[in-house]
Amino acid sequence: MRVDLNSDVGESFGPWRLGETEELLGIVTSANVACAFHAGDPRVMEDVVRRAAQTGTGIGAHVGYPDLVGFGRRAMDLSHREIVTDVLYQIGALYAFCRSQGVPLRHVKAHGALYNQGERDLRVARALVEGVARARLGLVLVAPEGSAMAQAAQEWGVPVAREAFCDRAYRADGTLVPRREAGAVRTDPAEVVEQAVRLATQGKVRTIDGQEVQVGCDTLCIHGDTPGAAALARAVRSALEAAGVEVRPFPGPGEVGQG
Amino acid sequence: MRVDLNSDVGESFGPWRLGETEELLGIVTSANVACAFHAGDPRVMEDVVRRAAQTGTGIGAHVGYPDLVGFGRRAMDLSHREIVTDVLYQIGALYAFCRSQGVPLRHVKAHGALYNQGERDLRVARALVEGVARARLGLVLVAPEGSAMAQAAQEWGVPVAREAFCDRAYRADGTLVPRREAGAVRTDPAEVVEQAVRLATQGKVRTIDGQEVQVGCDTLCIHGDTPGAAALARAVRSALEAAGVEVRPFPGPGEVGQG
Amino acid sequence: MRVDLNSDVGESFGPWRLGETEELLGIVTSANVACAFHAGDPRVMEDVVRRAAQTGTGIGAHVGYPDLVGFGRRAMDLSHREIVTDVLYQIGALYAFCRSQGVPLRHVKAHGALYNQGERDLRVARALVEGVARARLGLVLVAPEGSAMAQAAQEWGVPVAREAFCDRAYRADGTLVPRREAGAVRTDPAEVVEQAVRLATQGKVRTIDGQEVQVGCDTLCIHGDTPGAAALARAVRSALEAAGVEVRPFPGPGEVGQG
Amino acid sequence: MRVDLNSDVGESFGPWRLGETEELLGIVTSANVACAFHAGDPRVMEDVVRRAAQTGTGIGAHVGYPDLVGFGRRAMDLSHREIVTDVLYQIGALYAFCRSQGVPLRHVKAHGALYNQGERDLRVARALVEGVARARLGLVLVAPEGSAMAQAAQEWGVPVAREAFCDRAYRADGTLVPRREAGAVRTDPAEVVEQAVRLATQGKVRTIDGQEVQVGCDTLCIHGDTPGAAALARAVRSALEAAGVEVRPFPGPGEVGQG
Repeated sequence: MRVDLNSDVGESFGPWRLGETEELLGIVTSANVACAFHAGDPRVMEDVVRRAAQTGTGIGAHVGYPDLVGFGRRAMDLSHREIVTDVLYQIGALYAFCRSQGVPLRHVKAHGALYNQGERDLRVARALVEGVARARLGLVLVAPEGSAMAQAAQEWGVPVAREAFCDRAYRADGTLVPRREAGAVRTDPAEVVEQAVRLATQGKVRTIDGQEVQVGCDTLCIHGDTPGAAALARAVRSALEAAGVEVRPFPGPGEVGQG
Repeated sequence: MRVDLNSDVGESFGPWRLGETEELLGIVTSANVACAFHAGDPRVMEDVVRRAAQTGTGIGAHVGYPDLVGFGRRAMDLSHREIVTDVLYQIGALYAFCRSQGVPLRHVKAHGALYNQGERDLRVARALVEGVARARLGLVLVAPEGSAMAQAAQEWGVPVAREAFCDRAYRADGTLVPRREAGAVRTDPAEVVEQAVRLATQGKVRTIDGQEVQVGCDTLCIHGDTPGAAALARAVRSALEAAGVEVRPFPGPGEVGQG
Repeated sequence: MRVDLNSDVGESFGPWRLGETEELLGIVTSANVACAFHAGDPRVMEDVVRRAAQTGTGIGAHVGYPDLVGFGRRAMDLSHREIVTDVLYQIGALYAFCRSQGVPLRHVKAHGALYNQGERDLRVARALVEGVARARLGLVLVAPEGSAMAQAAQEWGVPVAREAFCDRAYRADGTLVPRREAGAVRTDPAEVVEQAVRLATQGKVRTIDGQEVQVGCDTLCIHGDTPGAAALARAVRSALEAAGVEVRPFPGPGEVGQG
Repeated sequence: MRVDLNSDVGESFGPWRLGETEELLGIVTSANVACAFHAGDPRVMEDVVRRAAQTGTGIGAHVGYPDLVGFGRRAMDLSHREIVTDVLYQIGALYAFCRSQGVPLRHVKAHGALYNQGERDLRVARALVEGVARARLGLVLVAPEGSAMAQAAQEWGVPVAREAFCDRAYRADGTLVPRREAGAVRTDPAEVVEQAVRLATQGKVRTIDGQEVQVGCDTLCIHGDTPGAAALARAVRSALEAAGVEVRPFPGPGEVGQG
């Protein structure tokens, strides 16, 4: 039994701080680094990559829509080509900092509205994946099992690390309860920890209406922009290790045994 | 006798067109591609790289200050680290498009105010060169002989392609007559062509006050944002070839015989 | 019989030129000035307002989504409040240049995706109109009769100048044939001129399937970003005047007799 | 005896929070509101203006260079016209929110590098003041006595509120000790309070080398971006009131008795 823990980091910008990047990089095993389209700037990117290199954290590009003031959370109607080229651009920008530190860039994860649209909209998902594939870096896509992103990745032969959530409620069909609905987000640390362990050890969650469903889980998302994020991440990691789960990065480019 | 011809291309942005990129890419041998800080966007970058790949034109990153509305032409007081990381970011972003097209990224040239400050200000020049070196891509820096940029490149072991100008007047010390002074820019095509040939064949220019001085010249800058740029580029190239000069890219990363 | 001619102007940005603003400002009677969210910058805005003041052209704010690289043409999912405040901001910014030149700001017109969404989506239309109303400048909204924008304006008591198009094909229900459909845009100058005269003199158009329908028309849109825009505008104006139509601005803030 | 207390507020942006705007608006009497060039966005601006209207705080435009990632703190070499038009644009944008809330816009203060350059560089100062004057809103300029900004304001007939600093050390010539020098910033609350009272009651400061000099003081700057800013502001205000100083806004547009 093994699982990766991923967290969104590097979401500061210019004079503004956001998140608990510094602490999280000692706990999670994969870091989704903002690439200056929705958050982050070249200094923040350098800091995060250096720190991730020191802690042995796997580095990925957290690619988003070009909407800084909206933090990439507002849906935008971009063409296929606009998404492909925006994704390539962001991957390359972050890759330069990885080269500079002598560490690999391993994965890509969509951010905010791009992630949300990529879950269900195959047109958006295919553009995202084309950008990932065309970088020719053997990058892994972090995406939920069964999502349009996962399907597009299969079409392109892009490896997927199946992402699951320990702080979100699931429905019986294995999809998440939308955030606007009651009970969508789990805030009780004990429940979060329990769901993490169940996902990592059994590949299952208990749904919002009490059923058990299978949810593929190579990597658990640890939200980083909530107060106390680092403390919760630490609790999740400890519980996983106590349950005999090996917490380490999913296999990266060129590695055997992709989950 | 050989020389490279370089031109700034890919300076369109969003709905706005600028320059004669399409025509120039069949004439010049090195393309300085804007990286979306002072001009260019991911679509423009992809178009230019694809076209340069088709025409066998050497590709370089034209790195500038983050000042789109000012086209990177306004001096900015950036810290050493801000320049290093902005340069790394831009190099990486363009490199992704090169990977996507299966062609190498070969060089870097500073744009606008960054170029101007890099000519004389060793602090700026060192930051620029550090960004180039830290990308670890063996990139060549395009810069005038004797400039602060050339000195910083030597300190870092970054190879330099010495740039000279066929449409600018020189002073007796080998530096350019500043643009604001009378006679700074040569507009007579015959004079431009003559200076190009003299630079490529003899490594000399006739200065504004009639002397002859040595000017190292591995690559000739062909300005691309003036009307008729492509026609002038064609005339320069024809005259060089008629004079027995081989017009081809300067040696790139890992190639022997850097001039 | 009277009609206003409006055109989108001031769509240059930084070093990039777009459109035929200079020529159009001597022909049309209302200018929709970009406010630096989707196009335009403070220098462009000042130039346009000064020139409009000289030619007696009515000045309006052409408000758009904050998406420069996409030219405001990409739909964005903004909240009510985001639209209201973005609109207020843009109106104020342009108003400062009007004050500086001693001329009134008279109207607002939505640009690109905001216009398109405002035609049908009452939520977007209400946010746009709230921004216009809250500026407390008595501004007129330029919008098609029967659109969601026109309805929202009525709710808020914001006066409307009904806009019609001389170069677009209409359907039997009085709405435009979508651009992606064949025959949507009229390119034959004679047809454009004829539709302009019919709209101004009879308030009617001949639809794409040959019927005649009523279309309210206080102001005719003259597209300014196509080559030859100024020449076509001149032809339309001449034909209107020859047909006895008075070409002048629609009544502005505080004026009696709003059409 | 009376004095105004001014503070920089509204420096949040998109998802990022900065400063103690909410608390400060109940303590200081003038608010310098960022206008989205170096910080702030239309939502932040609306929030600040509404809150300032509720608390009776005087509202001013905190105008800066167009450099969000650098927070307007990096010197930029803008032309006269670029500064004038950038200032006009920002003033207008904020003015729209004041109109919307039914409160006046009263003053302008330069931010960051624009302020620093405006202190000594008459070319920059004149451009700033021309922007203020051309808005034709009777705005007061907040600037130190003896600065280039104050001189330019006198040339243009723009009223000045003389700004002094209670947390900065002064030199014998009445200018500030530069930040990079030892002792430039006073951090002992007792010293800050003492300097505030001395400035407001006697128009004097004790310099870094122990002398007493006259410093004109219509308004005291309270820094808002340091932790504990609000608490310190409260202490300064209490001490001023205890010393018999009336703490209220400097006279605004059209008011008699400009200090």
